[in-house]
Amino acid sequence: MNESLNSNKQYKSEELYNEARHLIPGGVSRNTVFHKPFPHYVKQASGCYVTDIDGVERIDFANNMASLIHGHAFPPIVEGVTEQIKRGTAFTIATEPELDFARLLCNRASSFEKIRFVNSGTEAVMAMIKASRAFTGKEKIAKAEGAYHGTYDFAEVSQKAKPENWGDINKPNSVPVASGTPKNVLNDVVIFPYNDVERTLSLLNQHKDEIACVLIDPVPHRVGLVKGNDEFIEALYKWTRENDALLVFDEVVTFRVNYSGTQENYTVKPDLTALGKIIGGGFPVGAFTGRSDIMEILDPHQKNLLFPHSGTFSANPVTMTAGRIAMEHFDEQAVQNINALTQKAIDQISEAIGVAGVPMSITGAGSMFRMHLRAEPPTTYREAYQTKEAEALITKMLDYLFYEENLMMINTLACMFSTVMTQKEVDILSDAMLRMFKKFKPEIEQIQ
Amino acid sequence: MNESLNSNKQYKSEELYNEARHLIPGGVSRNTVFHKPFPHYVKQASGCYVTDIDGVERIDFANNMASLIHGHAFPPIVEGVTEQIKRGTAFTIATEPELDFARLLCNRASSFEKIRFVNSGTEAVMAMIKASRAFTGKEKIAKAEGAYHGTYDFAEVSQKAKPENWGDINKPNSVPVASGTPKNVLNDVVIFPYNDVERTLSLLNQHKDEIACVLIDPVPHRVGLVKGNDEFIEALYKWTRENDALLVFDEVVTFRVNYSGTQENYTVKPDLTALGKIIGGGFPVGAFTGRSDIMEILDPHQKNLLFPHSGTFSANPVTMTAGRIAMEHFDEQAVQNINALTQKAIDQISEAIGVAGVPMSITGAGSMFRMHLRAEPPTTYREAYQTKEAEALITKMLDYLFYEENLMMINTLACMFSTVMTQKEVDILSDAMLRMFKKFKPEIEQIQ
Repeated sequence: MNESLNSNKQYKSEELYNEARHLIPGGVSRNTVFHKPFPHYVKQASGCYVTDIDGVERIDFANNMASLIHGHAFPPIVEGVTEQIKRGTAFTIATEPELDFARLLCNRASSFEKIRFVNSGTEAVMAMIKASRAFTGKEKIAKAEGAYHGTYDFAEVSQKAKPENWGDINKPNSVPVASGTPKNVLNDVVIFPYNDVERTLSLLNQHKDEIACVLIDPVPHRVGLVKGNDEFIEALYKWTRENDALLVFDEVVTFRVNYSGTQENYTVKPDLTALGKIIGGGFPVGAFTGRSDIMEILDPHQKNLLFPHSGTFSANPVTMTAGRIAMEHFDEQAVQNINALTQKAIDQISEAIGVAGVPMSITGAGSMFRMHLRAEPPTTYREAYQTKEAEALITKMLDYLFYEENLMMINTLACMFSTVMTQKEVDILSDAMLRMFKKFKPEIEQIQ
Repeated sequence: MNESLNSNKQYKSEELYNEARHLIPGGVSRNTVFHKPFPHYVKQASGCYVTDIDGVERIDFANNMASLIHGHAFPPIVEGVTEQIKRGTAFTIATEPELDFARLLCNRASSFEKIRFVNSGTEAVMAMIKASRAFTGKEKIAKAEGAYHGTYDFAEVSQKAKPENWGDINKPNSVPVASGTPKNVLNDVVIFPYNDVERTLSLLNQHKDEIACVLIDPVPHRVGLVKGNDEFIEALYKWTRENDALLVFDEVVTFRVNYSGTQENYTVKPDLTALGKIIGGGFPVGAFTGRSDIMEILDPHQKNLLFPHSGTFSANPVTMTAGRIAMEHFDEQAVQNINALTQKAIDQISEAIGVAGVPMSITGAGSMFRMHLRAEPPTTYREAYQTKEAEALITKMLDYLFYEENLMMINTLACMFSTVMTQKEVDILSDAMLRMFKKFKPEIEQIQ
């Protein structure tokens, strides 16, 4: 039992969860909402405030795993979607909202020449990998150890690699996430250490004729929310040019970092990009976009259609409307504002770290950051990897924040800001952090 | 150019499409809406009527590829969803709508012991296959030639097999849909001929220690919309019991056939079932459900979690609310009514076939049917397979129905009914069919 829960109180969330355990494995529809002894159930939310069914209001720094750039029930989205729903939500003919949204997104980044929509980040990455194979005629992909790219088997290899199974850093093992993943899938995925140019190029060179694409999240959350450095991204770009492979970015999470996504930071551009999360305005979404000559393999006008692609709910007008409105309001100015506010939060929390004298550090980019139980920020997945003891402490810290400070965060001690936050919420956050650092200082010091 | 389009008229749909071609490969977000010379764009829809932006109203027998069981903008769904949207659309904590909907669905079929939601039928089938591998520890799957199960590579193998590549019926080839599909994927999929017990068992026996699951759509649309016969399904059930494999149903389309899905028709029950389409009430959805002991591999309480599973938008409360309302209104009586009305349509169209004297036939189940350019209904994928000439004629027939009769249908000459249809629409449909049969009689006779 969690020490911060009142064991005498009967929580409505607990009652619901007791039934949910009989109907849903683990009682949760998504492992991300799993929480012991029970997860809490939402009553309603507005802006950056979420109220649970037991009546507690919390500030939401998780924003549904980084997907709500304007927080909850953003009035322009509520209005636009409400109107669209009256006209229908899904059709077997084309819709204007898909065109409007495609135009908006393609205007946003120079590498977004043509676009297709799907229903999730998982589907976007899967489609991008399939497009890469179809275009290059090659079968393997390369991805970074620890990087999360959704639940398509190929994309999830080594996302949860552990010291017991990750192998030599010079040749990291392909470690399955789901038990029973075909050995053939593991063989078709080359794993490299993020930001390590020399080792990565050496590993890629061992499969130079077989690699369809190098898949990169430019600020991979699970690797430590560290930025892909210029030298690394440029080396991958050069290698893919020389070896008839594609450089493909997963910007499902990181598109929020700049107006044109994190790719704006680099001198080289990806051939394809997967999008999701914030571009749905709170509704299920994914998209993949990129070079026109590659995307044309999806065109049914082609005599030999290399990549036939469809999907019952893809580009549905509700998601397209919500997404368009969300992105219209996430203009250059809004990006600047949210990034500046997030930097303010990072500065204030860094100060709190200093005041409390705890050996912790912060990584991140744009409107997102993650805290680490180490004085020096990690630079690799293996450095950022949390032991069971560290994980247990982080769970205690998250519970403290949730129950005592009424703050919601991502389970890696990460925050994803929304545009509706203000200095008020930043101050509440940094004050809470200072109290947390002081409270857990002995335990934090023990983890080192 | 299509002969039925007025070449002097400037269509708004064409204008939109001209721009869409620069932004979206082929100008369409889903190949299912692709149409030459241009697809039409929706203005609004209500019930079973869809109006395009050029002002033409049509009766919708496609219902977004069978996904709208109550037609468009069903008032109880519009109302329920509008309320939910005001309270928020996606959270990092649990929601009551997911519990309410899980309870409703699990009460609906005896094999639905526990359930997890995802965002599409593609994701549902992918998760079901991953669960099968994780539970059995085996890597291969078996599926029927021609059957459509979404766009996950393993699930789509041989969906578009053709005479040039399908191989010997005693050992059908594993034919990729997307170019560049890894050979390893093809090797991990065993293809069998639907409803052919002897050949199927022989093929399964050749891989008896390697097969995690036998994947079956009980009325596979692309195989010919023919029902899986009792002997076939029972043989697969028996084989999977004897060989430590799972029998898994894809009822994404066929759940509409009965109150408990098509599985209600058989004495044996699948171990797992994938759902989608109508259970979303018009919003992106997928689900997989089945035996409690299998689904438990997803429970994060497990010390050794075999199948970790999450998804940003999975079980979002908008889809859960729309789906619950849709299914509440699709009760036993509603299923009976829609199936009876559909049977009436089949009877009237069969009569029209007789009156016109065309060599055509109809297959189907429940609220869905498909017409074939052959006097005897097909019983196998290879019989149902359409030559290029047959496909071209069907396109002409569909265009005639779309432009001259203002009827929308699925591009296989299939109809998926909605509960809001009445005898009036059935009469319009069968009258239109009679005119179509007469008009195209010479060409239909030539195809044979």
